[in-house]
Amino acid sequence: MVDDCGFDVVAPNGGAVRDLLRVRPGGPVDLAEIDPRSTPGLPGPEVTGPDRKTWARRQLTRLGAGLARQQEMLFAGAKADPGAGRRVLLVLQAMDCGGKDGTVKRVVGAMNPLGVHIRAFGPPTVEELRHHFLWRIRRALPPPGSLGVFNRSHYEDVLVPRVQERAPEEVWRPRYAEIGEFERELTDTGVTVVKVFLHISNAEQAERLLARLDDPTKHWKYHPSDVDARARWDDYQAAYAEVLARCGTDLAPWYVVPADRKWYRDWAVAHLLRETFDTLDLGYPPADFDIERERERLLGTTGPVKVNGS
Amino acid sequence: MVDDCGFDVVAPNGGAVRDLLRVRPGGPVDLAEIDPRSTPGLPGPEVTGPDRKTWARRQLTRLGAGLARQQEMLFAGAKADPGAGRRVLLVLQAMDCGGKDGTVKRVVGAMNPLGVHIRAFGPPTVEELRHHFLWRIRRALPPPGSLGVFNRSHYEDVLVPRVQERAPEEVWRPRYAEIGEFERELTDTGVTVVKVFLHISNAEQAERLLARLDDPTKHWKYHPSDVDARARWDDYQAAYAEVLARCGTDLAPWYVVPADRKWYRDWAVAHLLRETFDTLDLGYPPADFDIERERERLLGTTGPVKVNGS
Repeated sequence: MVDDCGFDVVAPNGGAVRDLLRVRPGGPVDLAEIDPRSTPGLPGPEVTGPDRKTWARRQLTRLGAGLARQQEMLFAGAKADPGAGRRVLLVLQAMDCGGKDGTVKRVVGAMNPLGVHIRAFGPPTVEELRHHFLWRIRRALPPPGSLGVFNRSHYEDVLVPRVQERAPEEVWRPRYAEIGEFERELTDTGVTVVKVFLHISNAEQAERLLARLDDPTKHWKYHPSDVDARARWDDYQAAYAEVLARCGTDLAPWYVVPADRKWYRDWAVAHLLRETFDTLDLGYPPADFDIERERERLLGTTGPVKVNGS
Repeated sequence: MVDDCGFDVVAPNGGAVRDLLRVRPGGPVDLAEIDPRSTPGLPGPEVTGPDRKTWARRQLTRLGAGLARQQEMLFAGAKADPGAGRRVLLVLQAMDCGGKDGTVKRVVGAMNPLGVHIRAFGPPTVEELRHHFLWRIRRALPPPGSLGVFNRSHYEDVLVPRVQERAPEEVWRPRYAEIGEFERELTDTGVTVVKVFLHISNAEQAERLLARLDDPTKHWKYHPSDVDARARWDDYQAAYAEVLARCGTDLAPWYVVPADRKWYRDWAVAHLLRETFDTLDLGYPPADFDIERERERLLGTTGPVKVNGS
């Protein structure tokens, strides 16, 4: 098929990669049943040819050009109608080495940086700890017309305290409901929320951590606490499973993207974004001025206009 | 030559495009003497071949990959030594249609969006007008380790009030000195400031405005006030000339980039950034942990590691 941006993007399953990856609200989630090396929605070899990776990378370039256009339309629409407050928020969560940074670089990097607002959340600072856990999140929301990206998010606050036993259950458990309220408030005010869990295997994490230790240009990405967290792998997986089951809603769904294969991960996240933009009925706003009159005014300020540009 | 990132980037004039484009501090500036279609520093046809545009676009891709690497080093260094506060701030100013957005898209877009902080400044809001003109600027400074980009900046506050006669001279003139103080404070705290004026011709602006009127996907970029500002072209050029002459310092220089040709503009700004990064002696920080010990700890948390990754 040829998409609305003029690119021939293969859209498997009628374009609905998100239907394949979405977590059903309320249902139990068993991450052990989702193969991190699987590739849901990727067309078969009759479309991709024998080299699926090369095919997916090439598709990503095309998807990226379409995303850039859609993002520009979102931006243009917000300029014409700022009150609508429309924006998209991509929340990325994963175990260490799950590929959040790589996804930002390869998928989000395809769009005009002017329209993208990225915020990475580390361990809370002393000042942040003095406030409600959503305080720093609210301050980081993207402005209307933009794509916001949270590299880690408020979900850390129901994961880390629980697994690392830094707070009792009566502190972190009520946060599920608060997060639900908060995200409903977001969707009510024009924010389309897309939450993605990048799902890697324990073995893949070990390899990626080892690769960081082996490469001096990657030492800065390594921290000994990564191994401590890794020792609690099963606890984190269980905590994630509960988050995915409890905090995925129809309006702010969770998606699980198998992420051992980077080329699939990027292709899938790009598809999720594209399908999300598709739901927004984007378009360029009409002129709010008289085009002919402006042309005359413009020509009135100028000598003969050159025929040839750059 | 092959640059330190492994790319063969032709660096004319010993790498110093910035020496060609820098405004000499204190000296008078006559913009009419700088041809907006000129291409200072661009190698001759013996290097570029007959198609200079294609050559420059190809070089931009290579420069972009190098910039991405340099920006990552800046980011990594700040993570290891946050107290140093090192960051780079690119200030972009131009007449309407001067190409600020395009420069952000093509040059800044080559870097990992995680390490880039972009802020566009429109006309001051009611709240902003209640504060000192540098208030909104200070709040938008990039965090350590990142490249900040100001799409318009505090320089609007010595241009617009003057030309549009919205404030008397005793309001805007003292701002030159305040800006000088402010930028010295920035450089004192680890911010490397690069100020770029994208210099287009009157005729080129007319063409680009006409192109916006002719293309429904660009109407949102057009505003009738663009023509009003255009009617004051000479006044703006004079105001810019004074800004360039008075506010360029050795530590926070102004560069004038001829910008009628977009492919030259992008190539030149990328070179300016690259040469600026070069002055920072960037590198990946050494590990602050015992690599061998971490390898053992890591292997202790895992079963047999796969040989083959993705």
